[in-house]
Amino acid sequence: MEQTIRVELGDRSYDVRVGSGILDSVGPAAAALPTVRQAAVIADSNIASSYGKQTADSLTAAGIDATLIEFPTGEANKTVAVFSDMLDAVFAISPAIDRDLLIVACGGGVTGDISGYVAASTLRGVRWLQCPTSLLADVDASVGGKTGINHATGKNLIGAFYQPSGVLIDVETLKTLAPRELQSGLGECVKHAVIRDASLLDFIAENTTEILACQSDVMCDLVARNVAIKADVVAGDERETGTRAHLNYGHTVGHAIETIAGYGTLSHGAAVSLGIIAANAIAVDSRLISPVDADRVRQALEALKLPVTYPGLNPDEVWEVMQRDKKARGGHVRMVLPTEIGRVEIFDNTTPQQVARGVAALG
Amino acid sequence: MEQTIRVELGDRSYDVRVGSGILDSVGPAAAALPTVRQAAVIADSNIASSYGKQTADSLTAAGIDATLIEFPTGEANKTVAVFSDMLDAVFAISPAIDRDLLIVACGGGVTGDISGYVAASTLRGVRWLQCPTSLLADVDASVGGKTGINHATGKNLIGAFYQPSGVLIDVETLKTLAPRELQSGLGECVKHAVIRDASLLDFIAENTTEILACQSDVMCDLVARNVAIKADVVAGDERETGTRAHLNYGHTVGHAIETIAGYGTLSHGAAVSLGIIAANAIAVDSRLISPVDADRVRQALEALKLPVTYPGLNPDEVWEVMQRDKKARGGHVRMVLPTEIGRVEIFDNTTPQQVARGVAALG
Repeated sequence: MEQTIRVELGDRSYDVRVGSGILDSVGPAAAALPTVRQAAVIADSNIASSYGKQTADSLTAAGIDATLIEFPTGEANKTVAVFSDMLDAVFAISPAIDRDLLIVACGGGVTGDISGYVAASTLRGVRWLQCPTSLLADVDASVGGKTGINHATGKNLIGAFYQPSGVLIDVETLKTLAPRELQSGLGECVKHAVIRDASLLDFIAENTTEILACQSDVMCDLVARNVAIKADVVAGDERETGTRAHLNYGHTVGHAIETIAGYGTLSHGAAVSLGIIAANAIAVDSRLISPVDADRVRQALEALKLPVTYPGLNPDEVWEVMQRDKKARGGHVRMVLPTEIGRVEIFDNTTPQQVARGVAALG
Repeated sequence: MEQTIRVELGDRSYDVRVGSGILDSVGPAAAALPTVRQAAVIADSNIASSYGKQTADSLTAAGIDATLIEFPTGEANKTVAVFSDMLDAVFAISPAIDRDLLIVACGGGVTGDISGYVAASTLRGVRWLQCPTSLLADVDASVGGKTGINHATGKNLIGAFYQPSGVLIDVETLKTLAPRELQSGLGECVKHAVIRDASLLDFIAENTTEILACQSDVMCDLVARNVAIKADVVAGDERETGTRAHLNYGHTVGHAIETIAGYGTLSHGAAVSLGIIAANAIAVDSRLISPVDADRVRQALEALKLPVTYPGLNPDEVWEVMQRDKKARGGHVRMVLPTEIGRVEIFDNTTPQQVARGVAALG
């Protein structure tokens, strides 16, 4: 049981393979890349000894000299300092590395982001494989080539657009995820359904129990369908100058709530879920979608145990935070709103009144 | 008096403009780039108050909000720490920057390398203009998109291939160069002549006096011709997988001598000059070129006051250092040798005996 999705990016195209137990295929996949003899597996302290070691063992078994590089877990470590430490570890690999080195990122979003930037920066770019182990990384970070680290003044401000040579998603790793981590990915799945694929919303609604239990077959389908949507969006706009902004659906108000709650208080998925509810309320209010459609989305979110209410929000504060967001270019607040389930458009001049309507829907 | 050379790299193509007094055109050039409103001018402590300020003033006069970022001069500062400091300075620009920020690199090779990497890394890539102020940066670093910083274990190990939006070369800045710095660029000019353009060797031989005096018209022609050669080589092989290696002519033995002498003892141009002499001696020995051709090249180097002898070298030591070079893949020593003036080929299995012949020519 394995599915392959091609991410079409010209000479930077690559395959995303989704399957059960696929982490043991990393070795053969790496060996199939021309001239790879050495690999650095980057994994955080939570999984270095489990999935990290499993990945390194697969590489070794395939005849590739693998070095496991462990770093301290957590978003707080997505820094220049840890990036620099990783480069030190890469250049300490013996015998000296050359451009035939392969970087293998094994872990969640933080690991993929920082490892990808290490791969982009080592000798001005070496190949890398991404082996995401969280649902959020599977359906979001694994496609698009956004790599990077945080700066004291903001998230993901330093980095590169750098595509991997391939992505291997082992859905078995989802079974060890904390519920909060699973939730983070599910928010993005509903987002993808609303922006591109109404039938995915049906699939989610019909398989809620299996999804929450991380049943392998269903997770394979869920991940593959989401990767396909993200791949399609990214292929149309690699450098984020146009329709890639559709992926911000649910994120404008969502980010504001995340900030107001205090970063890390809400899971990313919870914040996105609330952002989706708010965006849909605005869309209903503007007669873009029907209340029935908005309700279908709300039911899917609720079934996935994602929050759909957040009482006590001050709409003025939400508006103010939205205006400070780096995506609010030139002071205008841009929102992505659905015009039907499976289709969104970008609206550049959202008003404070509209945002207040969205916030009211969360009360 | 201005010449423009197009660097053809698909959607990353750009123009290199060479002229006298062109530094005052940075403002209009930046203003011609869509949506640029803010710029960060990066210059080292040697020239921040002169050319750096001149550049910033030109930007301000063109209506662009310019911030001058100064960093301590010298190759020793091409580090992760200085890179990180520069990013701090970029993100401290007020009001908050977005992808419309323009980075302007004003200075020699170190400035271009580190500034380009800052541009590549800021918000995953903002536009940058390169304003080289040394002959080496003019004819070498200004074309090719190699950006980066040093690691404790080697030079330029961390960085990105990242093309500028344009390059402005003001030959007037060459008049303030130290003779040793001028020499560094002249070594590359002779290299370019040998690998691609016999008539450039004639031009150099006929204009030696004007070149050493940095006479503006002649320097314009010299720089433009060299940029055109480098642009042609890079356009054929942006990511250095094939013929871009021709640019290593004179550098294999040259780097080894640089290392043996103690890095910084010889100017880069002096080391390249010695490397050219050695490579040509090997080429004569292998009947690739005639002694007459080798002598023409030697005369040009001597006329430019570049060294052509370096007595006392131990050929075994040179061989050993060459084998350690990162460009010596898989233990084989690769050398680029001329087959006539204006044409080179790559030879993958240079022998210790050949290198000894080359070293003997320096005695």
